[in-house]
Amino acid sequence: MDGDSSHIPLRGGGKEGTDDKVPCFPEERLGWKGYIEWEKYPEKQKEAQEILAKYDFAKPPEYQLEPLPKTNPILEGVRWKQYHAALGPTLRDLPKISWEYVQKEKSPDMIHVLDFPYNGEPPKDRVIEHAITPNPLFFVRNHGGIPEINADDWFVDIEGLVKEPRRLTLADLKDESKFPRVSNIVSLQCSGTRRIEQIHEYPGDGDELINAPWGEGAIGTARWTGVSLKKVIKYCGGLKEGAGHLEFFGADTYFKKGKVYNYAVSIPWRKVKVHEAILAWEMNGEPLPRIHGYPVRVVVFGYIGARSVKWLYKINAIENPSLAPVQSKEYLYYTPQVGKQNATYSGGFSIQDMPVSSAIMQPVDMMQIVHDGSIKLKGWAYSGGGHWPVRVEVSGDGGSIWYECPHDKMSDKYFHAWRLWEIDLPVDAEGWLEFCVRCWDNALNTQPTFVRSAWNWDLHVTSSCHRIKIYSINHSRPATAQRLKFLEEQGMSITPITQPFPFDLETEKHYLKIMAISRGRDPVE
Amino acid sequence: MDGDSSHIPLRGGGKEGTDDKVPCFPEERLGWKGYIEWEKYPEKQKEAQEILAKYDFAKPPEYQLEPLPKTNPILEGVRWKQYHAALGPTLRDLPKISWEYVQKEKSPDMIHVLDFPYNGEPPKDRVIEHAITPNPLFFVRNHGGIPEINADDWFVDIEGLVKEPRRLTLADLKDESKFPRVSNIVSLQCSGTRRIEQIHEYPGDGDELINAPWGEGAIGTARWTGVSLKKVIKYCGGLKEGAGHLEFFGADTYFKKGKVYNYAVSIPWRKVKVHEAILAWEMNGEPLPRIHGYPVRVVVFGYIGARSVKWLYKINAIENPSLAPVQSKEYLYYTPQVGKQNATYSGGFSIQDMPVSSAIMQPVDMMQIVHDGSIKLKGWAYSGGGHWPVRVEVSGDGGSIWYECPHDKMSDKYFHAWRLWEIDLPVDAEGWLEFCVRCWDNALNTQPTFVRSAWNWDLHVTSSCHRIKIYSINHSRPATAQRLKFLEEQGMSITPITQPFPFDLETEKHYLKIMAISRGRDPVE
Repeated sequence: MDGDSSHIPLRGGGKEGTDDKVPCFPEERLGWKGYIEWEKYPEKQKEAQEILAKYDFAKPPEYQLEPLPKTNPILEGVRWKQYHAALGPTLRDLPKISWEYVQKEKSPDMIHVLDFPYNGEPPKDRVIEHAITPNPLFFVRNHGGIPEINADDWFVDIEGLVKEPRRLTLADLKDESKFPRVSNIVSLQCSGTRRIEQIHEYPGDGDELINAPWGEGAIGTARWTGVSLKKVIKYCGGLKEGAGHLEFFGADTYFKKGKVYNYAVSIPWRKVKVHEAILAWEMNGEPLPRIHGYPVRVVVFGYIGARSVKWLYKINAIENPSLAPVQSKEYLYYTPQVGKQNATYSGGFSIQDMPVSSAIMQPVDMMQIVHDGSIKLKGWAYSGGGHWPVRVEVSGDGGSIWYECPHDKMSDKYFHAWRLWEIDLPVDAEGWLEFCVRCWDNALNTQPTFVRSAWNWDLHVTSSCHRIKIYSINHSRPATAQRLKFLEEQGMSITPITQPFPFDLETEKHYLKIMAISRGRDPVE
Repeated sequence: MDGDSSHIPLRGGGKEGTDDKVPCFPEERLGWKGYIEWEKYPEKQKEAQEILAKYDFAKPPEYQLEPLPKTNPILEGVRWKQYHAALGPTLRDLPKISWEYVQKEKSPDMIHVLDFPYNGEPPKDRVIEHAITPNPLFFVRNHGGIPEINADDWFVDIEGLVKEPRRLTLADLKDESKFPRVSNIVSLQCSGTRRIEQIHEYPGDGDELINAPWGEGAIGTARWTGVSLKKVIKYCGGLKEGAGHLEFFGADTYFKKGKVYNYAVSIPWRKVKVHEAILAWEMNGEPLPRIHGYPVRVVVFGYIGARSVKWLYKINAIENPSLAPVQSKEYLYYTPQVGKQNATYSGGFSIQDMPVSSAIMQPVDMMQIVHDGSIKLKGWAYSGGGHWPVRVEVSGDGGSIWYECPHDKMSDKYFHAWRLWEIDLPVDAEGWLEFCVRCWDNALNTQPTFVRSAWNWDLHVTSSCHRIKIYSINHSRPATAQRLKFLEEQGMSITPITQPFPFDLETEKHYLKIMAISRGRDPVE
């Protein structure tokens, strides 16, 4: 579970030691390690498909109908490692290389949701440690290996329905005489955020996805610096008649149903026109980390993170949304009961703008908390598409009574970023209580009530009120304080609550006194 | 996990190999193996308590906050085995002996919820195989080991507030010139039935219990034959002034918080007066199995099973409900949030009459079912206290639309027994659906809606509507039938639904056709 794929056995016609030749898909460009160009060469794609067809790749592990492994990485991604190994030396070492960048660039306490392609989120308390997420704590949702591209060798081709197709280097982009520098605070969120809640309630793979079992940490906020994509398109003479969308290509290799692609998606031109898509080379004042798309990535404001393509190498102006698989076959929002037996890609709608959402990050689900009549809750709230969180409300009773988070306990407002919040929630009752949160954005959108209210096939965008169970022990109640004091004197703890007490809960004398007061257990006559 | 406690190490002052003497609590009576009389001898109880205090017994395993083991037995009961081992030769082998009776007397496919003291329930489909449960399939909830009592050596002492205390042998009870024979169909139910639902939602030991994680099978129905306890009391000259309750003692040894007892509980005289308590020696026309109380047990109609004392050896007429721990400190129904930090025994009410309840036994939770527009559901319904199920209703949508089970598909009515039911439930929708059941009894009582509606500290009497999740695949829908046919042709299965399909869900041609029909993904202007 360390990203090393050299040990991964491959079954099928391509076995090592047979007389099959080792596939050779050479690197495309000098200084672009781990990048194979697939989109331009249908014959290479076909050859790769034929190679892949020879193998019996590992089955995905069952983790939706069974409890998640308690390992870190939670999932390994064996078949993805095998896909890369099957295609020869250019891709074979990418799992290992990618894992090395996890070690170098990410915080050591990251939760590795998937070893390869690397998917990771910070521990819950660290997600909300900073309103602007430090780079090592920013979640990572990669779809393939990490190509190692020299910044000096990097360029992007802008082609398709642009009037003057061009190739631009990083030096070109950084040339402020050509392109004014822009810098924006923007949150990126994976549509898989909080998927674990849907997996728990409605396990069922969406066919198309690994369905990484994300918690509430697949969201982060950074200051991104670069140039407005609109300016770049203008620099290419603008769009030709009929162009409505811009398609982005990443240098990572993407596998789907036995075929290979470069990672590709698109966004509408209208999004670019209002300067809500940038080509960025800086993340929080530093060069992009390799794992986040070095040297240049797209950042699309208010959209699903999947559109913010990393390791960008091509921009293609097209008429309609991309037919590339990530755009046309994934990140779709289906109606609940469609099921794998009826699903069609065209039946799901394309997730672009992200809806209003929020999460409680402190305390965490199933905690047993001794308190004095109030419990501090902290979390994040976000709304995409240029909306912003205006009000955050929490409930200590499953959603009947709501308390508004004080505005002075909420972080700054941005058009395209989350807000962190906190509140001291009055808690009187004891025992298992359901805490939940909802956010209202500036357009008065709020969140669906239950996971079931917003359950969708493929388990995307879990935006219902986030709910956790907390076992409340209210020290401000005299009887509770007395029991806690007694336990302390005995050197015992009240938690975990599942441990039996070795002493009687009440003396026989007290029992009989109460029986007398309540006139016995039975009626008089 | 085979009932053999000889391997169980004991830590503490009583270690084997130290110079502590082996405790000696000899058997009380000839022909009564494994029976120690504790109640009559406070000095023996004290000695046992001192011995037990020397040991560090095994901690109960964590299974409420963690998933249940998938073993059978599910739980072992190590500390109960150790308790018995600590008290010397009379009790030491009881775990082994008890386990041997499990092998001899119970169906080989029983689910062993707890190895020792033995707690077991039949597999779900077998619970409802017969309206009258065959003895080998009847659930077992024992609180200690199985004493081996010769029928010829057996007798019961009737004492306390009876006018003429007597000792009666089995031959006396069977003497129809003294006692008319009675025979009744009666269901017995453990108050722990369906506890697993409360454990899943509200894990937390009730301190006093092992909280065996019962499913829906801790209920069974048998024809019990014996004599009415009222006749026996009359034979003893009736009760003295002030007597209001009858206390029963079983020959099994009961451990609680470091002390030893014989199993003891009580029921009110008014219950006996209406011939709703019998002393039984036959179960379904056969002598009682050892594991069910041979040679003679109490059977109390409509009450919690815990009052139907096995291996009966004493009946004590008393003024108020028994102060024995099983009666006064267990099987109490608490208010939800009282929690272990505030619980007092007097604060819970005593579970005697059982409420209306029901369960779906077929299909089972999380099944993925291909059907043709309807799914057959089967289950049981029960109401205690002399009530009986009149109507059973099921819902395929979590409880909005209810369908009544046809009366000709329900088993016979008895005043004190369950009814089995079945129904072909119309199911149109696909995907994860919530099925639930509720019963109405003849007094128009019905069940609480959700587990939360009837959550009680100590996790007893889970009588809320029983809910299961079913993944519905409706073959009567043309698109579904087509997908299923295609899969069959490929030699593939649609289940488990978590397995990805290797083929595209839709051709690009079809996708583009639908895009054209829906005029693209974006608005016109």
